[in-house]
Amino acid sequence: MIIMLKPNSEEEKIQKLIEQIEKKGLHVQRNNGVDYTVLALIGDTAGYNRSSLEVNEIVHKIIRVQEPFKRANRLFHPHNTIIKIGNHTVGGDEFMVIAGPCSVESEEQIVGVAKQVKASGAQYLRGGAFKPRTSPYSFQGLEEEGLKLLQIAKKETGLPIVSEILSHDKIGLFMDNVDIIQVGARNMQNFQLLKELGKVDKPIMLKRGMVATIEEWLMSAEYIMSEGNPNVILCERGIRTFENFTRNTLDISAIPVVKRLSHLPVIVDPSHAGGKWWLVEPLAKASVVAGADGIVIEVHPNPEEAWSDGGQSLKPKKFDRLMREIEVLARTESKTLLPKKEVKSW
Amino acid sequence: MIIMLKPNSEEEKIQKLIEQIEKKGLHVQRNNGVDYTVLALIGDTAGYNRSSLEVNEIVHKIIRVQEPFKRANRLFHPHNTIIKIGNHTVGGDEFMVIAGPCSVESEEQIVGVAKQVKASGAQYLRGGAFKPRTSPYSFQGLEEEGLKLLQIAKKETGLPIVSEILSHDKIGLFMDNVDIIQVGARNMQNFQLLKELGKVDKPIMLKRGMVATIEEWLMSAEYIMSEGNPNVILCERGIRTFENFTRNTLDISAIPVVKRLSHLPVIVDPSHAGGKWWLVEPLAKASVVAGADGIVIEVHPNPEEAWSDGGQSLKPKKFDRLMREIEVLARTESKTLLPKKEVKSW
Amino acid sequence: MIIMLKPNSEEEKIQKLIEQIEKKGLHVQRNNGVDYTVLALIGDTAGYNRSSLEVNEIVHKIIRVQEPFKRANRLFHPHNTIIKIGNHTVGGDEFMVIAGPCSVESEEQIVGVAKQVKASGAQYLRGGAFKPRTSPYSFQGLEEEGLKLLQIAKKETGLPIVSEILSHDKIGLFMDNVDIIQVGARNMQNFQLLKELGKVDKPIMLKRGMVATIEEWLMSAEYIMSEGNPNVILCERGIRTFENFTRNTLDISAIPVVKRLSHLPVIVDPSHAGGKWWLVEPLAKASVVAGADGIVIEVHPNPEEAWSDGGQSLKPKKFDRLMREIEVLARTESKTLLPKKEVKSW
Amino acid sequence: MIIMLKPNSEEEKIQKLIEQIEKKGLHVQRNNGVDYTVLALIGDTAGYNRSSLEVNEIVHKIIRVQEPFKRANRLFHPHNTIIKIGNHTVGGDEFMVIAGPCSVESEEQIVGVAKQVKASGAQYLRGGAFKPRTSPYSFQGLEEEGLKLLQIAKKETGLPIVSEILSHDKIGLFMDNVDIIQVGARNMQNFQLLKELGKVDKPIMLKRGMVATIEEWLMSAEYIMSEGNPNVILCERGIRTFENFTRNTLDISAIPVVKRLSHLPVIVDPSHAGGKWWLVEPLAKASVVAGADGIVIEVHPNPEEAWSDGGQSLKPKKFDRLMREIEVLARTESKTLLPKKEVKSW
Repeated sequence: MIIMLKPNSEEEKIQKLIEQIEKKGLHVQRNNGVDYTVLALIGDTAGYNRSSLEVNEIVHKIIRVQEPFKRANRLFHPHNTIIKIGNHTVGGDEFMVIAGPCSVESEEQIVGVAKQVKASGAQYLRGGAFKPRTSPYSFQGLEEEGLKLLQIAKKETGLPIVSEILSHDKIGLFMDNVDIIQVGARNMQNFQLLKELGKVDKPIMLKRGMVATIEEWLMSAEYIMSEGNPNVILCERGIRTFENFTRNTLDISAIPVVKRLSHLPVIVDPSHAGGKWWLVEPLAKASVVAGADGIVIEVHPNPEEAWSDGGQSLKPKKFDRLMREIEVLARTESKTLLPKKEVKSW
Repeated sequence: MIIMLKPNSEEEKIQKLIEQIEKKGLHVQRNNGVDYTVLALIGDTAGYNRSSLEVNEIVHKIIRVQEPFKRANRLFHPHNTIIKIGNHTVGGDEFMVIAGPCSVESEEQIVGVAKQVKASGAQYLRGGAFKPRTSPYSFQGLEEEGLKLLQIAKKETGLPIVSEILSHDKIGLFMDNVDIIQVGARNMQNFQLLKELGKVDKPIMLKRGMVATIEEWLMSAEYIMSEGNPNVILCERGIRTFENFTRNTLDISAIPVVKRLSHLPVIVDPSHAGGKWWLVEPLAKASVVAGADGIVIEVHPNPEEAWSDGGQSLKPKKFDRLMREIEVLARTESKTLLPKKEVKSW
Repeated sequence: MIIMLKPNSEEEKIQKLIEQIEKKGLHVQRNNGVDYTVLALIGDTAGYNRSSLEVNEIVHKIIRVQEPFKRANRLFHPHNTIIKIGNHTVGGDEFMVIAGPCSVESEEQIVGVAKQVKASGAQYLRGGAFKPRTSPYSFQGLEEEGLKLLQIAKKETGLPIVSEILSHDKIGLFMDNVDIIQVGARNMQNFQLLKELGKVDKPIMLKRGMVATIEEWLMSAEYIMSEGNPNVILCERGIRTFENFTRNTLDISAIPVVKRLSHLPVIVDPSHAGGKWWLVEPLAKASVVAGADGIVIEVHPNPEEAWSDGGQSLKPKKFDRLMREIEVLARTESKTLLPKKEVKSW
Repeated sequence: MIIMLKPNSEEEKIQKLIEQIEKKGLHVQRNNGVDYTVLALIGDTAGYNRSSLEVNEIVHKIIRVQEPFKRANRLFHPHNTIIKIGNHTVGGDEFMVIAGPCSVESEEQIVGVAKQVKASGAQYLRGGAFKPRTSPYSFQGLEEEGLKLLQIAKKETGLPIVSEILSHDKIGLFMDNVDIIQVGARNMQNFQLLKELGKVDKPIMLKRGMVATIEEWLMSAEYIMSEGNPNVILCERGIRTFENFTRNTLDISAIPVVKRLSHLPVIVDPSHAGGKWWLVEPLAKASVVAGADGIVIEVHPNPEEAWSDGGQSLKPKKFDRLMREIEVLARTESKTLLPKKEVKSW
């Protein structure tokens, strides 16, 4: 941490400030510049309460130097984290593809989609059972019943299940029924939920909050990791900006930035980022070559009848075509995809 | 809802679309413009799944006309909602002042601050017991013990208590110990929490999310109201923008906009908006004359030693001076403040 | 400037970097922290090309400490700048009120408005002659003819003229016809225009760009000042954010922040910030008590017929009512307004 | 345009409003909804002064339906615009690569880079002669001398020249010396410059403003086109958001969105978007597969010594490696790149 003092600060007050900081176990190195005096705080400042320093009348500005995340920080863990899920891995050579409908609607729907996306090469099935909706008048999900239908689809296809949790009192239910627990953008800073998820060992897919900086996102990963669960998969899904032609603005740069700052796997959700089905293909492809470890795609057999998010869902046929393009691009990044299993007539 | 069709859409497809919409109980009025054909949907479109229409190949654009909130909408409830809390009210002639420390730290601290802010004219005491912190390594609040200390402060001063809840399983505890339950910015779209708070009758202070539009904020109020609790107090606390000299950007316009769109009371938290103690005074004063129904101010006896948010807290003496200015300004808005109770030496 | 090195950087490369920096005349102070080595650059780093350092393979992060503006910086010029314009001043005890229509439309219109706003206590007349419009199909202003009509209005009322310049080749024309030259938000970084305006001695009203940080805004003031013109009046007019109910988001905090960072006067344009006439009153009042040195208000005799921006213009009667409120609030800030000159029937 | 009236508006006032609109040559279709009456305005509303309607007391909300751009609109011009520049084209099958240093510094530098980027397959040379810099204390470009050096590089390599213009009084100079005139982000709404560029026939590369919506960007293209110059190349270069780890946030979705809304070519500048050299490669690759018609890359022989933007420049060797990757990806999009000309030792 760097503290820049006001010009002409009294020497006595500077000494008092230095003492106050050193009392907390930090070492202070002092630089007398031309216009400013600067104090550099040496030691572990991650837990230091910076806010209290700002009240000091001789302080002009405080600048943090150290990143506040540790376990998620690549500086102290240079190798990529590779997470094992069933027969698959994420963060290594395999390119992760999660596909499925926004909401689980019926057994027929979810089993049907599961078979189709598997045939196209997806390794995981997604489906919402508990839905966080902006309006109380919108469909809120089939809840527990939805998780049961996902289990049926898993039995039929073998695909591991990804589904979103909304509150910590449902963790037991999710431990029994899903393979990757998703924390949605709106819950990225639901710290109680994060802490409880840190106490289990399931992989957690942590979506970036709509307004979260990359640093805050990594701090939320840190919440989970600091409780003991190292299996965090980051998922970029677009941030909110002034541009509102698109639902959100996909922050494609977040992929290489996260890769540089952290060792955790990072995947992309182009469906929520763009909010329109015709944006899914270009955004998915861009994510692959920007270095993502995987993608999450909304697929629905009949988007015009979908109970939620129909406008951003791909039909199985379009998804299959996209998978063929992804396959080619993943190879240019030295990543592999599951081979297409069977020829189907859509 | 307005649907704008692509130029030269086939008549047959237009007819099919109109039928599809009318099947859902809406009436369609058709306008053949020069370049575009436009369909106006008449009826209650609030629950209509707009996303599914976007998939239709002849649809160029969909424009929502109706506001999606009903109970919070001033159009259908023209008079201001006035909420009673103990001997006080908010939303009417009384100007609400909530003051107290960011975190409850000890009995001495909270009781001391309570007496001081009461003496200066505050009608409510705030204090955090459960703290949502960005870093897992920061102080997380005294939790249940903190609520007990707030109760002691209430007994000593008579000030009703305002404190933040983090998850719905603590609602019972908060019902017993606080007078206004605060939902923080990070939980503004924790829909399960909102629904459960809709089932009690305590006043809820709903902070605006850092990235929430005014409409989304009102939709979150709608979640609470739609379950039966009409006592929602909105609290503007700054939004996230590209400007990062300040912690957030206080959206001062949100006050008159909310007043126009809704009948609910709206107050302002200048401490979190600015993030620096020297911004509290100008932002608090601005809020009064922009039409706010009240303010929330962080006050700490010794900000340099505060366990959290010291940098944005006022000392009791500065708070007292601010209250004298607020008193004058509130009068110009035909609002009244509690008179200063006693002369104190700070 | 602070340079944070990567952990375990080779000593030889560190030495080479230090030499490279010292060759440019800066002194380097080195701090060996636990995890990082940090270099503090002492000396005048304002002109130092930081970008080139980022390429160095051992550099982890570069942090600027010094503000890049000098002449506009309060640190080196602690007293408020007070600018004289005719019989008036801005930046001192007088509260500046600039009023008038968005566009000059006719002699009758501009002279009529000038008389009305003067009667209500405005000290300056604004009126657009060259209009920067988003659409090439919108009215672009009366141009030179507009400036002549403003001169007629000045002769009739004595009010100094404020009008916007769009390009540096018109500076001669503006020197002859206006008293304060306005640089609009879209030209805040038209550096050639700024440099040329630095060579004259007229007061320049510099609007903040829609997306400019406060620092960038002060850097644009620095452009004008570095060429020799110290008479810069800053004007906050709202920034672009994700909230689009309002045209822009008035950054009310910018007023106290600018006052702290700089000695220049700062005024507010609530008409452009809100974009709706019913927002002008609350935003104008908020600006006064937040510490602004003045306001700019759009006034039009008949907003329904205005050639531009009618929706955000006040009728003279409403403007007069607002002025009575402003008068009271300015007094609470120890600022004075011109007294109301004459009773008029609107 | 859709006008939503307040509930219970008086019939007489509605009739008056309809008459007022019809007087301007538009047809009004009226829809009496359950809660609201809605007026649909049929006819050419592009030039209609919407702001004046907002003042009407019975108006609740106005919603624009029609896009305000015409010549740039794909609806009325379904085929891609293909622009010819020397022996090359942009907007068709050829993938455009513009490369070169941020600033022209010397003959040796610019001729050297030109040869290197040509050898790697770039078809155009960029180089800044007039530089818009945030600080008046930074290097401002070699100006006219810089353009002369670019001409020398063109003579040596045959590469057409791309350089940025800052003001309309230099158009003659640029007509003589460059092949594509660049309008920078800060000048995207310098409407006088745009109008004058509309009167020449050179291709204009129009960068998106840091805070411009896609619609505003297309409106700026419309300014150029409405004066008669159809040769506009759009260039996405990142927008400003709350995330400031990166210099700007590359809006990768803008590529498919522009392709859908407009027929103009769109290219990407990953160097300015990311602001760090290690982001250029992933962002450039992402742009290719998202459908861009080309890229602009900053290349400098010795970024550590560059006079500007060194931190985001690639060394020629890294640029060459990137070009080999781009070649493969462009082919997957059915676009071709110039073949690599000669083997060089870097």
